[in-house]
Amino acid sequence: MRPVPRVVIVGGGFGGLQCAKALRDKPVDVVLVDRHNYHLFTPLLYQVASCLLNPSEITAPLRKVLRGAANVRYREGDVAGVDFDKRIVQLADGDELHYDHLVLATGSATNYYGNEEVRAHALGLKDLGEALQLRNHVLECLEHASTAATDRERQRLLTFCIVGGGPTGVEYAGALAELARLVLPREYPELSPSSLRILLLEGGGRLLPMFVPSLSTYARRELEGLGVEIRTNTFVSSADDTGVVLHDGMKVETATMVWTAGVLPNDPLHEKPERLPVDDHFRLVGTAGVFAIGDVAAGHDKRGNALPMVSPPAMQAGRYVARQILDPGTRRPFRYRDKGTLATIGRRAAVGQIGPLRFRGFVGWVVWLVVHLYYLVGFENRVRVLMRWGWYYLRLDRPIRLIVEAQPARDSRELAGRESDRPTDR
Amino acid sequence: MRPVPRVVIVGGGFGGLQCAKALRDKPVDVVLVDRHNYHLFTPLLYQVASCLLNPSEITAPLRKVLRGAANVRYREGDVAGVDFDKRIVQLADGDELHYDHLVLATGSATNYYGNEEVRAHALGLKDLGEALQLRNHVLECLEHASTAATDRERQRLLTFCIVGGGPTGVEYAGALAELARLVLPREYPELSPSSLRILLLEGGGRLLPMFVPSLSTYARRELEGLGVEIRTNTFVSSADDTGVVLHDGMKVETATMVWTAGVLPNDPLHEKPERLPVDDHFRLVGTAGVFAIGDVAAGHDKRGNALPMVSPPAMQAGRYVARQILDPGTRRPFRYRDKGTLATIGRRAAVGQIGPLRFRGFVGWVVWLVVHLYYLVGFENRVRVLMRWGWYYLRLDRPIRLIVEAQPARDSRELAGRESDRPTDR
Repeated sequence: MRPVPRVVIVGGGFGGLQCAKALRDKPVDVVLVDRHNYHLFTPLLYQVASCLLNPSEITAPLRKVLRGAANVRYREGDVAGVDFDKRIVQLADGDELHYDHLVLATGSATNYYGNEEVRAHALGLKDLGEALQLRNHVLECLEHASTAATDRERQRLLTFCIVGGGPTGVEYAGALAELARLVLPREYPELSPSSLRILLLEGGGRLLPMFVPSLSTYARRELEGLGVEIRTNTFVSSADDTGVVLHDGMKVETATMVWTAGVLPNDPLHEKPERLPVDDHFRLVGTAGVFAIGDVAAGHDKRGNALPMVSPPAMQAGRYVARQILDPGTRRPFRYRDKGTLATIGRRAAVGQIGPLRFRGFVGWVVWLVVHLYYLVGFENRVRVLMRWGWYYLRLDRPIRLIVEAQPARDSRELAGRESDRPTDR
Repeated sequence: MRPVPRVVIVGGGFGGLQCAKALRDKPVDVVLVDRHNYHLFTPLLYQVASCLLNPSEITAPLRKVLRGAANVRYREGDVAGVDFDKRIVQLADGDELHYDHLVLATGSATNYYGNEEVRAHALGLKDLGEALQLRNHVLECLEHASTAATDRERQRLLTFCIVGGGPTGVEYAGALAELARLVLPREYPELSPSSLRILLLEGGGRLLPMFVPSLSTYARRELEGLGVEIRTNTFVSSADDTGVVLHDGMKVETATMVWTAGVLPNDPLHEKPERLPVDDHFRLVGTAGVFAIGDVAAGHDKRGNALPMVSPPAMQAGRYVARQILDPGTRRPFRYRDKGTLATIGRRAAVGQIGPLRFRGFVGWVVWLVVHLYYLVGFENRVRVLMRWGWYYLRLDRPIRLIVEAQPARDSRELAGRESDRPTDR
């Protein structure tokens, strides 16, 4: 029996997971590598950061998702490099994985545009560890503000600066405003709700630039109704322990700068901060047997426009590449189907555009809700998230207000054992 | 108007929270101090560690619990010391709280009996940070075992050593055995379920020494039926990166030592590791206006027996002390009502003794379930935990299998601001 081809997929996000699922029970041997043991539904990450959802409700353990597929297995690991000639993926733990087909689907990371000062003081909102850090941090700010020695210090702790007016910034700003509005008056008698300040800074001329201008205007009005101060055409030029300085020299005293102002491809080859060049079949230029999809790849639609760094093109490319691997004779080029864009503003408004349709307000919110539940991985997660949303919609609560960190992981030496023991057993 | 007396309660566990609740809407001004912003239902902590419950389901934010009581407020803080003459509690952040009545309810911490080697290598199961660390660690062991270079290393990673045969050790051992039995065969094709080893080590002659011997025997048989190896009359004498050494010199190669072998009072006065001496009204000996309750205090029942370090006497003492504070004339001594003891073994067996009654098996499990739901704080938590238990009872799953740590907290300097800024504003 001829051995079946080995497919290595790096990254269990939207693109990598769709590719792995499409290869289930097919005549290939698949290894899905990810540093995390779960798939993360990033569009709802801001709801973990704002005390509304549990981490377990927006994640699915990769082994559970892949359960029952005898030809697909999960491998926890970080990619250290790829030897394209020998067709080998090198992992950080020293192991090497041979491949016949390699799919790079490593997504993107926060882009601080090289400003190390900003990076050192910013809070990200791109992975689960960052969302929990942000949740802890905001709750700590409220606690510290409750006992602040001076009015000035209290005001600094109650000033929350969100940088970036894209969907993540807009959605988090709305969720934070509602959290504060619901919780402060009832549970923080020491604090005046009116002293809370949420600033949303956007470098461009309007919020949500991927939407039509009328929806940007609507989003701005809704956020302002929730008490969010919005400044467009505004950049952060520097940051220190006491606050941030804007491009015009204005200083904002704050203990919180949430950075959602840009992403950059998460290149596993550790080369340049650019999307990997691919042809119109997502083949990595200059290599054989290597595909790159999703945020990390510079894919194009048939008109030559760069694919946006969002989940639908990644998922479509994942399925497309799986078909290419199973039937290399197929030469039908990739056709991107634009699924539209959605963003919520607070608890019952949203904006959306799907093809020629425009939604906003409550109708937009219902569309947003249905779409997000549909794409959430796992039936149980859908049920739980829907119940939570229903409950909080009625009860107006944000109950997951815990300041908790896992104790740091055990020393990795202990997990790995004494290296000196190993050779004798090999 | 005469100012109302100020009551400072240190600790938001079972004792402190009951005391605060009993003082709600009474003519006192109450400050509840705790380093954590939540009340933790410790009896279900092992279910967080074994991937069954979310942290939010066994906790209640203290501000939420105290919501609506105008005379009770929460203060995040660590106690650095108490000046009994000046009646001042000193907090680690430098603030001082004056009190007329002080209630010390700081609970207990893990007791490593002075063995620093063991402490450095053990995983605790006493607070939420430790439970999440243990969850992460066990899942990492399974991942590392999946790619171990040698059989010996794989076996070391699949050997889980639980020290202490009290309720925590027994309940966690059963839950870990079920987690492994449910998840390994379906999701870890690289691992043979039979190679997993769970050892439960108990220093005394039998498990659950607080129960009658017949229930200890039943618990042992049930755990052995789940595949747990039990060794009584066994102590850990030392530990290193590769495993633990037992008192008889035997070496167990393991990456996991969970330590549930003892607790010691969490003395906020940082004196000796003994329970604080109190009279039969829980007044701290040698002081005025100071009470100590729960695990930290050496309270006695009317026969002179030390109160056990479990939640019922702490809760009863909390309410008793609240009555003392409100009506100092009352001189009726404390009468401990023994509420019995319960422990689960796996998914549908438990042992219990309440007064003259003895339960075991499924009946014991139903009693255990009802009692735990009843004492869980918050209606919503009760509903959610019951749904989870029902769901997992039917679906045989342990879905919260996430390896995730919050990113470390922001530098505390940043939250506190520049110290040099402060005096000018005071």
